[in-house]
Amino acid sequence: MSKYKLVYFNARGWAELSRLIFAYSGIPYEDFRFEREDWPTYKAESPLGQAPWLEVNGQKLPQSKAVARYLAKVANLTGVNDIEAAKCDAIVDFIMDLIEPLKVIVKVKQENPEALEDECKKHIGKLSEQILSLEKFIAGNGGEYAVGNQITWADLFLFNFIHDLMVHAPQLYDFSLAPTAKKILIGWQTYLLSRIGLQNVLSLKCSIKLSIMHSKLSLPM
Amino acid sequence: MSKYKLVYFNARGWAELSRLIFAYSGIPYEDFRFEREDWPTYKAESPLGQAPWLEVNGQKLPQSKAVARYLAKVANLTGVNDIEAAKCDAIVDFIMDLIEPLKVIVKVKQENPEALEDECKKHIGKLSEQILSLEKFIAGNGGEYAVGNQITWADLFLFNFIHDLMVHAPQLYDFSLAPTAKKILIGWQTYLLSRIGLQNVLSLKCSIKLSIMHSKLSLPM
Repeated sequence: MSKYKLVYFNARGWAELSRLIFAYSGIPYEDFRFEREDWPTYKAESPLGQAPWLEVNGQKLPQSKAVARYLAKVANLTGVNDIEAAKCDAIVDFIMDLIEPLKVIVKVKQENPEALEDECKKHIGKLSEQILSLEKFIAGNGGEYAVGNQITWADLFLFNFIHDLMVHAPQLYDFSLAPTAKKILIGWQTYLLSRIGLQNVLSLKCSIKLSIMHSKLSLPM
Repeated sequence: MSKYKLVYFNARGWAELSRLIFAYSGIPYEDFRFEREDWPTYKAESPLGQAPWLEVNGQKLPQSKAVARYLAKVANLTGVNDIEAAKCDAIVDFIMDLIEPLKVIVKVKQENPEALEDECKKHIGKLSEQILSLEKFIAGNGGEYAVGNQITWADLFLFNFIHDLMVHAPQLYDFSLAPTAKKILIGWQTYLLSRIGLQNVLSLKCSIKLSIMHSKLSLPM
């Protein structure tokens, strides 16, 4: 079996999707984390001047999505054919775009908290529209999983995105301006938590554990 | 053989990588283009509210990179194994990041041309550093191709990026502050033009044709 070492800051960030794939599939790996002040040292070792990277039997692979897609192939989480693999890729890239406003919101929250509400209002319309598009696309794929008839890495990334949205921008998650999108998101998370074994993931090594416990509590009964 | 229809605005933009793959591989397809004022009609037909998308025997695949990766698999342009495929993915995503400052520059050029020089100066340092990182990574892959021992879609995207840089931000391409990065870029383009058959591509249907003829003229003798 190959030997895997995932190298990243001591944070969820761009490594978390790969950690979820490892945790879900049960493939053993070293979850190597370094502190922010040690970045100059690790940057010099990184393949493209960035983190995370994955070491596969010592060979370094950069870029978070490339790493996660590689691991998803190893874990048989890319669908049953090239069309399904492409649909997974499309959903992952689409969610990446949804993360952009979240990044802005986290920054505003830290640097200018009184501007947070206005910042959230700026994004809620487009975000709701995008979530409805995603819901429609997924419904067209069968609707039970993000793609096809089994869990893929697209489901795990969707789960991760909903988690981030709830933790970092509950104002957006509340979706008071977008009740349909809210219903879709809550539906997805409830489904993902109940159906695809993520409870098991939570008892494993990925760092999403504690904050998910929190977000479970915030789900409506 | 599958029937392919690529749907996008009448522009290079995010469809050009897929057009280059079609052109390079000789796979026949319909290059369906619509005008900007017709976007509302096509948006309603699009799988995720975005363009481009690809129709494969009538089935719609969204997201430009997901489409290009799918076509690269069809055209045998993703390397010889999963590690090489992951390295292609990493280079494509890395170049996507490099395109971000280019998009800003194109906007400034259109809306506030007198601020263009200052805008370019803002980006040249980081861009040069990133290009040197990419050069180092590619050198570690063997150095003759972006990945492994044959052309992949990463080479085509690199070619496309250099083209865009030369057309939209010659101030950055000039790299007066970064002679090594300039040398690397010129080396790549000369290499790509001479070695991997892109002259043949130029006589085909991709829309890069005319502007590349222009950029060839701007190469140093």
